[in-house]
Amino acid sequence: MEKLVITIGRQCGSGGHSIGKLLAGRLGLAFYDKEIVELTAAKTKLSPEFIRTHGEYFHGGALGHIMGYGTRFDGPAKTGSALTDQLHQAQSEIIQEVAAQEPCVIVGRCADHVLAGKVPTLNVFIHADMPSKVERSVVEHGMDRDRAASILTRRDKARAHHYRFYTERKWGDPRNYDLCLDSGRLGIENCVAIIADAYGRMRVLAG
Amino acid sequence: MEKLVITIGRQCGSGGHSIGKLLAGRLGLAFYDKEIVELTAAKTKLSPEFIRTHGEYFHGGALGHIMGYGTRFDGPAKTGSALTDQLHQAQSEIIQEVAAQEPCVIVGRCADHVLAGKVPTLNVFIHADMPSKVERSVVEHGMDRDRAASILTRRDKARAHHYRFYTERKWGDPRNYDLCLDSGRLGIENCVAIIADAYGRMRVLAG
Repeated sequence: MEKLVITIGRQCGSGGHSIGKLLAGRLGLAFYDKEIVELTAAKTKLSPEFIRTHGEYFHGGALGHIMGYGTRFDGPAKTGSALTDQLHQAQSEIIQEVAAQEPCVIVGRCADHVLAGKVPTLNVFIHADMPSKVERSVVEHGMDRDRAASILTRRDKARAHHYRFYTERKWGDPRNYDLCLDSGRLGIENCVAIIADAYGRMRVLAG
Repeated sequence: MEKLVITIGRQCGSGGHSIGKLLAGRLGLAFYDKEIVELTAAKTKLSPEFIRTHGEYFHGGALGHIMGYGTRFDGPAKTGSALTDQLHQAQSEIIQEVAAQEPCVIVGRCADHVLAGKVPTLNVFIHADMPSKVERSVVEHGMDRDRAASILTRRDKARAHHYRFYTERKWGDPRNYDLCLDSGRLGIENCVAIIADAYGRMRVLAG
């Protein structure tokens, strides 16, 4: 059977996690989001807390560079010295391992880039307008309404920076994805259905 | 009946025109692409040639500004003096007129922005990798293979500049669209099917 992996990049609060989980359930695929944290912790000596904080978020900038949180690299050579580089390397290996085992849905963690050229993928990006994201974050995750927009914006900046750092590509640029969906306008259920439809069509192509 | 209009922005060579036409046929909707040129010519004293050249492409820059091809505006006030501003105004009125008449598919010409807040829309953007776009342009439109990539890139730059000038938004930014699709990876037919699926779901939402 052709192994078509669905990768989901997503803005904070856009419901990308829920969409991925529902999608995996509907299509009978394995699902990896926070699960990657546990697998990475088991593979490395890094704490789940460190992995959660740095596995998708870049807390760099000038100070971050000096502190060795992330070392910018030119060309193919990477430093491999900073903890965040080790984390990215371990996480990427796990993504490749789970993707090689079975068709699955993988949320975040540069999975689209990590798997490029290795296994067939359907690469999806989920975004939404800020009011929808705030509403979702307040209702689903109990986020403080007054601070939600600023928290979501800051997290997305750290995700974008992380993605740019490790892929040399722009996070959320539609050219990196097969399908980008506005979950605020389409709704979570419709996003699931549209991606499932596209998945069925891509499998026909890939098979 | 709820009037849900499909707008399609597209990179040159991505097959956005074909996707729109097939989609309109499948859904039984009116279709507007080059048709807008004729309607605009009939409404104004502008030649079809001028409308084709400037209706979606910004040939501005410093010289363009001096020549009055397009005058940058700040805030809500527009100059209205330059021919391109007149063209954009007339074209936008026609887009609003046809969208008010019946559900339809409208390709390009900032239709997503022109119709925002006026009629319910499903806003789509079609993109593809350069080899797919070159192949399509050579096979479908007889473009010279050696020059195709540079021609497509130049045209897309002029489209992006035109969109930015009249909407103050970034062309191809997924946040401006409900759905972005890679026609190179998904194929033309699959794009049509996926958009038709999303359209059915949006109509349920809108109805």
